[in-house]
Amino acid sequence: MSFPVSEYQGRLQRAQRRMGAADLDALLLTTEADIRYFTGFLTRFWESPSRPWFLILPAAGSPVAVIPSIGVALMTRTWIADIRSWPSPAPGDDGVSLLAETLTELLGPKARVGVPMGPESHLRMPLADWDRLRALSGLTFTHGARILADLRAIKSEAEISLIRAACAVADRAFARVPEVARAGVALSQVFRDFQRLCLEEGADFVPYLAGAAGPGGYEDVISPAGPEPLCRGDVLMLDTGLTQAGYFCDFDRNFSVAPPSEAVRATHAALVEAVQEAAAAARPGQTAAGLHRLLTRALGRHGAPGAGRLGHGLGMQLTEGLSLLPADHTELRAGMVLTLEPVIELAPGRIMVHEENIVIREGGAEFLSRPASPDIPVLAG
Amino acid sequence: MSFPVSEYQGRLQRAQRRMGAADLDALLLTTEADIRYFTGFLTRFWESPSRPWFLILPAAGSPVAVIPSIGVALMTRTWIADIRSWPSPAPGDDGVSLLAETLTELLGPKARVGVPMGPESHLRMPLADWDRLRALSGLTFTHGARILADLRAIKSEAEISLIRAACAVADRAFARVPEVARAGVALSQVFRDFQRLCLEEGADFVPYLAGAAGPGGYEDVISPAGPEPLCRGDVLMLDTGLTQAGYFCDFDRNFSVAPPSEAVRATHAALVEAVQEAAAAARPGQTAAGLHRLLTRALGRHGAPGAGRLGHGLGMQLTEGLSLLPADHTELRAGMVLTLEPVIELAPGRIMVHEENIVIREGGAEFLSRPASPDIPVLAG
Repeated sequence: MSFPVSEYQGRLQRAQRRMGAADLDALLLTTEADIRYFTGFLTRFWESPSRPWFLILPAAGSPVAVIPSIGVALMTRTWIADIRSWPSPAPGDDGVSLLAETLTELLGPKARVGVPMGPESHLRMPLADWDRLRALSGLTFTHGARILADLRAIKSEAEISLIRAACAVADRAFARVPEVARAGVALSQVFRDFQRLCLEEGADFVPYLAGAAGPGGYEDVISPAGPEPLCRGDVLMLDTGLTQAGYFCDFDRNFSVAPPSEAVRATHAALVEAVQEAAAAARPGQTAAGLHRLLTRALGRHGAPGAGRLGHGLGMQLTEGLSLLPADHTELRAGMVLTLEPVIELAPGRIMVHEENIVIREGGAEFLSRPASPDIPVLAG
Repeated sequence: MSFPVSEYQGRLQRAQRRMGAADLDALLLTTEADIRYFTGFLTRFWESPSRPWFLILPAAGSPVAVIPSIGVALMTRTWIADIRSWPSPAPGDDGVSLLAETLTELLGPKARVGVPMGPESHLRMPLADWDRLRALSGLTFTHGARILADLRAIKSEAEISLIRAACAVADRAFARVPEVARAGVALSQVFRDFQRLCLEEGADFVPYLAGAAGPGGYEDVISPAGPEPLCRGDVLMLDTGLTQAGYFCDFDRNFSVAPPSEAVRATHAALVEAVQEAAAAARPGQTAAGLHRLLTRALGRHGAPGAGRLGHGLGMQLTEGLSLLPADHTELRAGMVLTLEPVIELAPGRIMVHEENIVIREGGAEFLSRPASPDIPVLAG
């Protein structure tokens, strides 16, 4: 577990208050982040799709884990006391009857069980087993009332510390990019070396790295790296989500291979300035849509603002929670951690994106990443 | 794309033959591996849960991608020609109406659409959106008839080459473990350094690393690393899933910190011997259950065989497909790639696990990982 038991107990109590208000007898959770949020169960083993995992949060009382036996040793080291297990994978009945029995034993035959069904959620179990669970248990499964999304959106100081630590690791790794990137080096080699730098600087894992390079800007921000070498005049962007005890940072840095063109220089400065303006306005009461409007206005003074969202929440996942979009009217609250991620289109198919991580405090935003200088760093050309 | 277009066309044709036999008008795919299997769309961006992605495989004709606009540039570089997109995230209608319209336009109003619903599958979209898709489209969504699981189980030579390449990277990294692990080094530092070695040796990413260390064996194999230092007499196990172009290896290596006890020495040799016996019997016509029986018998001559599955398929995911379990009667076929993963319990709560990767050929098994020596390697104590 990454936190004291009291942190998990507080989360449970808040969830239980919300369950009471929503007339739910329990929540049923199936995904890595949701289960870890209440248990502290941290492992990369979720990379294997072979086994389902379940956590039952009753509206009163303690959580019950219904998990494959391979996870019992690790779950026993968390604060969860009631652990039921089965030898998974079990073709034909992979935990479904045990889960159905446990639910009805805990909650009675007429319970209403909430399951996260809203944006960004998914049910991590086979659909055929989901149908069987409903038939076997006879319980009412209904919408989880956004309880997980709402609770996870407000980070505790302990969570913020881990995200800050992840950001600090990435800051140090970004500062060392000139060691590994220069004209002539393949982008795929830069990707490998940058992950290595992240690990040397203290990352536990580097689950996410994207980036791109292109003359005077790049085409997109999610592509894998190819063998093409960096060239003079390229803008290189690296965007990483590395973790500390399962908490992510998510920000990028741009670099100019050889001194930048005036357009690249000015665009970078405009992106940094837009972030600073938005950060200055990011405080409780402001909204996600409001920040989007501010960023778009700032970018509009310098060029064509790119389409799409211009930031998002983060924490236990690379992206989670609010989106900086005109349609997202989520009000900012103290403890929310988010990215500011403006994009400018320099030419058709040529963009630059800049990203920082902040936490909302009562008095305003605090940077978790070390804010970039307006001057784009220059790599050997 | 990692492969020539013909590879993807062949996969599509095989899927379409199966759709015809199963009376399906299309398959609807939502997960990273399933979508990549037919498109070559490779990105770490799936780490973000914020957006759903869809691929429609009609029973006749070409695949249609229905994806967030942020992915269009990358999808355009695959062989997929028909790409529909929307600006996601879109609170309220995140691709659902576009997907419903596209399905009915392509398939008519009475189509039967298969969706993977069996073991190891999940639906990667919010349940509320799934309900809305069914209501909006009026189509019949039904079980995907194991088409994805069956197709993906048989690897092409191009896929086997990538898995072999991943194994070779891990082989080289494991050979360098003595550089980074010795008595006094924290396990968490060994984890970071081992990932660094994997990257130095050519890994694209290291999505999975687990391991453990303990006196004369370890307690479990999925835990994250703690700050405790390695001690003389510990057995250290590192188990990695690193990727080459999105294909995994998955095997482990054991090390003794200082010369091993007789029990550890003999157990390691027995595990290696059990793998060799199983590999010698792994050929078309043999079954997953048969290999489990062989492994259990070999282990029984030396100690207590551990519980649970003793191997599994792998490829686009760390684990996928068959399980070496008494209940899994899957017949081995040429082109299947699997792990052999015997475990011996040396004492209550003290296990050792050994794992290799093989591919099934017409004439027998070929090792993809370089088979370990019976002699457990020794680290400085």
